[in-house]
Amino acid sequence: MSAQRDAKSGTLFGVGLGPGDPDLITRRAARLIEGARVICYPSLAGGDSFARAIAADLIPGDAEEIRIDVPMTPARAPAQAAYDAGADRISTALSAGQDVICLCEGDPFFYGSFMYLFARLKDRFAVEIVPGVTSLTACAAVSATPLTARNEVMTVLPGPLPDADLRRHLRAADTLVLMKVGRHLPRLRALLESEGLTGTYIERATLGAEVVLPLANAPETAPYFSMILVTKGADPWL
Amino acid sequence: MSAQRDAKSGTLFGVGLGPGDPDLITRRAARLIEGARVICYPSLAGGDSFARAIAADLIPGDAEEIRIDVPMTPARAPAQAAYDAGADRISTALSAGQDVICLCEGDPFFYGSFMYLFARLKDRFAVEIVPGVTSLTACAAVSATPLTARNEVMTVLPGPLPDADLRRHLRAADTLVLMKVGRHLPRLRALLESEGLTGTYIERATLGAEVVLPLANAPETAPYFSMILVTKGADPWL
Repeated sequence: MSAQRDAKSGTLFGVGLGPGDPDLITRRAARLIEGARVICYPSLAGGDSFARAIAADLIPGDAEEIRIDVPMTPARAPAQAAYDAGADRISTALSAGQDVICLCEGDPFFYGSFMYLFARLKDRFAVEIVPGVTSLTACAAVSATPLTARNEVMTVLPGPLPDADLRRHLRAADTLVLMKVGRHLPRLRALLESEGLTGTYIERATLGAEVVLPLANAPETAPYFSMILVTKGADPWL
Repeated sequence: MSAQRDAKSGTLFGVGLGPGDPDLITRRAARLIEGARVICYPSLAGGDSFARAIAADLIPGDAEEIRIDVPMTPARAPAQAAYDAGADRISTALSAGQDVICLCEGDPFFYGSFMYLFARLKDRFAVEIVPGVTSLTACAAVSATPLTARNEVMTVLPGPLPDADLRRHLRAADTLVLMKVGRHLPRLRALLESEGLTGTYIERATLGAEVVLPLANAPETAPYFSMILVTKGADPWL
């Protein structure tokens, strides 16, 4: 991806792991992880790494592990410093000729933290992205909600957006996917109701203890990894 | 999914195969196909089945194969008749207690023809959906185009939509995914240019002979399975 790449350097792999069920890892991702010498993954605010947990059974016991602990602060600088430090460690391994397998929840390029590493390393090293199953279609699957057919339009909306922005998109598309619902659930539910829309609430899709409920019956407090699907259902799919 | 289900009936599996590279099949999908007694797949207008081709190495030699040949006509009735006939054959196998593995390009619920079978069978039989990697993130991967970060909004737009609808969405979202580009490429390119937007053109993502080009350099004629990604790039992902 750059003229400055060194042929002796390793390749950085951004590997999508899917939404959480290890069975939804692709065959290519599984093979890369099983053969890894150096793996890398994010963890949030000193907690466990969800990405590492998804892939745990595949990680060789003797692989070097680069853990990037991302602080959860409103300010960006502390997270940026964590990605800087992580990119430095990855860079050292790549420069020594080792491939580095970065474990990514879902898909690396769909709201994934891998993008921050990609931005820091793509001009110096070969990068390969292995796409993964997103939470989007996982939520559609577990809730038996077909997303889009024919010429329907789908918009993906992060829940933290202001009401006015959300309202505009809610009116414009046929299918709406509200991500990062978390503490915004009561506000989002009121907003959808005010637009005459109903939806399906999903949390922990494919993780075993998943919750699928009509939005009206959703709990008052939702985890960060929760989603609302709204399909206007103009098309009977027949 | 319905009170009318018979405990002795088989389960209908809608199995996402990913965008084309057999290595992007999930482990769960691979296992289901390897163990299949009855498989089902669509083919278009008498041609080969792309879904069957993706999974070919996994299909047991002695599996029963239900092929649904979907005519490509502007009228809906001939396609509906094909899905009716396919659903009847699937229904016979399910009622006899056999599971049926439906092979789906990409993800079953993301612009997938499986929805037409799902609509016809979901009230009578148990259905399980195995989500797959979509062409969306596959195109992002092969073109090294991060799609969305933080609170960015993404809209998926079928290329056949009228200019006025497309233009409204092009202005509203941060990331645009134009699907089903095909013969609409010249019109879509002109529309994007008139909005001051550039994009990346991708065809046959993950299929080996893939094409990734700046939109300005895209060919005049595109296959049906082609895509344009537009990221407005407000966020430097740092």
